[in-house]
Amino acid sequence: MSKEAGFSGVIAPVLTPFGDDGSPDAERFVAHCEWLMEEGCTGLAPFGTTSEGNSLGLDERMELLEELVDSDIDPAVLMPGTGACALADAIVLARHAVDLGCGGVLALPPFYYKAPSEEGLFRFFAEMIEGVGDDKLKVYLYHIPPVAQVGFSLPLIGRLIKAFPDTVVGLKDSSGDWSNTAAILDAYPKLEVFPGSEIFLLDGLRKGGAGCISATCNVSAAAIRNVYDNWKGPDADKLQADITALRKAIQAFPMIPALKALIAHYRQDPGWARLRPPFTELPAAEAEKAIRTLADAHGFKLDFAKAA
Amino acid sequence: MSKEAGFSGVIAPVLTPFGDDGSPDAERFVAHCEWLMEEGCTGLAPFGTTSEGNSLGLDERMELLEELVDSDIDPAVLMPGTGACALADAIVLARHAVDLGCGGVLALPPFYYKAPSEEGLFRFFAEMIEGVGDDKLKVYLYHIPPVAQVGFSLPLIGRLIKAFPDTVVGLKDSSGDWSNTAAILDAYPKLEVFPGSEIFLLDGLRKGGAGCISATCNVSAAAIRNVYDNWKGPDADKLQADITALRKAIQAFPMIPALKALIAHYRQDPGWARLRPPFTELPAAEAEKAIRTLADAHGFKLDFAKAA
Repeated sequence: MSKEAGFSGVIAPVLTPFGDDGSPDAERFVAHCEWLMEEGCTGLAPFGTTSEGNSLGLDERMELLEELVDSDIDPAVLMPGTGACALADAIVLARHAVDLGCGGVLALPPFYYKAPSEEGLFRFFAEMIEGVGDDKLKVYLYHIPPVAQVGFSLPLIGRLIKAFPDTVVGLKDSSGDWSNTAAILDAYPKLEVFPGSEIFLLDGLRKGGAGCISATCNVSAAAIRNVYDNWKGPDADKLQADITALRKAIQAFPMIPALKALIAHYRQDPGWARLRPPFTELPAAEAEKAIRTLADAHGFKLDFAKAA
Repeated sequence: MSKEAGFSGVIAPVLTPFGDDGSPDAERFVAHCEWLMEEGCTGLAPFGTTSEGNSLGLDERMELLEELVDSDIDPAVLMPGTGACALADAIVLARHAVDLGCGGVLALPPFYYKAPSEEGLFRFFAEMIEGVGDDKLKVYLYHIPPVAQVGFSLPLIGRLIKAFPDTVVGLKDSSGDWSNTAAILDAYPKLEVFPGSEIFLLDGLRKGGAGCISATCNVSAAAIRNVYDNWKGPDADKLQADITALRKAIQAFPMIPALKALIAHYRQDPGWARLRPPFTELPAAEAEKAIRTLADAHGFKLDFAKAA
């Protein structure tokens, strides 16, 4: 199946499973991606923050992406994270994604040096886009100041869109600040804007947003997709309230370890809980608490009956 | 010439020059390294923060290091920065440095994810050291919280020394906080501790410190070396006051662009001033002001007469 250009809907920043030896586990990874698409994701963003993407080596990211493209998933629905502190690395990753037919790339700003100038960030992206040198490159700016510390100001977004109108086509806003998302939507109505949490999904859609790219899509894509599909309907606010409540319950735990613990539990596959340093697994008692709390208060469970 | 194990004295985090096309310029780089050793540096730390090290790709770092090792400089005096957010990348860089005979590596913590646990950071370094798997690996912990945001607590340093006493042998403290350096020196007297600024050189030496690893060694190594060589002498405080004053005058400008502008000026080589995004060159008027201010107030100039 093929899709139109651009992204919309429910996109999962895919968790990365690791094997016994700590290396990425391609088999578990592809199986999870296929399950996510069955659950209702419209796109996948491997190698985002939730994916421990910046804890993966360049070669590891490229090999996993090749495995995914070799599966039944259309590369057009893939928006891999290609951010790197070094321009040279960012170009290698973005070109690789374009060559594999990925529909877009999710691009962090260089995040080692703090408080860079707008001009310096503009040049980084200009040189990255020119370095890839391919009209098929579609860049989604990845704004996540709580983690990267370096972000995209409104003027910088505007400069990049103006200079590269056919390439800089979208943005993920993981600021957690709805007023920032709203300001971007007001200023750049043609940009495909994705809040970084489904808490802002309905508000975003009502203001012209494209959907959401959210960590919790790894475990609750079906419910989030239901809001996306029915956002103009009479139950939209009720459906949104439900996914907001679930998201808040999940994010009361350390997000990435908790998501992996939930999948490990419901897949009956303890190895799924592994993380790469600097992350550590949720202690068993905390994992138990997360599973029980979510099940009791939200009827939460995962069904892998259909999965390979 | 060969040197004893360990580092001491005056170590420059070497600036990285770039060519017209933005790629690292190995010829200028090696010439600068050779000049720094003639000026009195006892060691070189390429690919540190001042080196725009995290703006270089993995391959770029390794190729530059190979060029340097092919020069007349003893690899035992080299302490390349091998930090990376991804364990896999950190292992590749550290193993490469060991294989080339480098005397040590300057190792950042993984810096993308913020507020990692002590256990998570310990595991990162444990897995890095075990991944390299070579007794010749000597790790210098790179503590620079103003930039990396993630740093080394006293307990973490202690755990790493205890677990890897023959490998974790030193630390660069770029916190800018003398009380932190003093606390590390008190707690771990055998550790080779280098303040990240020559402002703390004499205080450090008097408390058992090993020297300094400082950005401004790129332009004032001779004067800093003079303090190191005479720290027990009657003029030590006067000599320290002079290098402190010069350092403060230089750091009144944006450090990395200013250092490159000074070298470009005194080498009569405008290309030396190039930086990689997200950095931008010092505007011409600012560069003029830096050159004039330093010359007028501190008699500052650089002499490349001896240089190749």
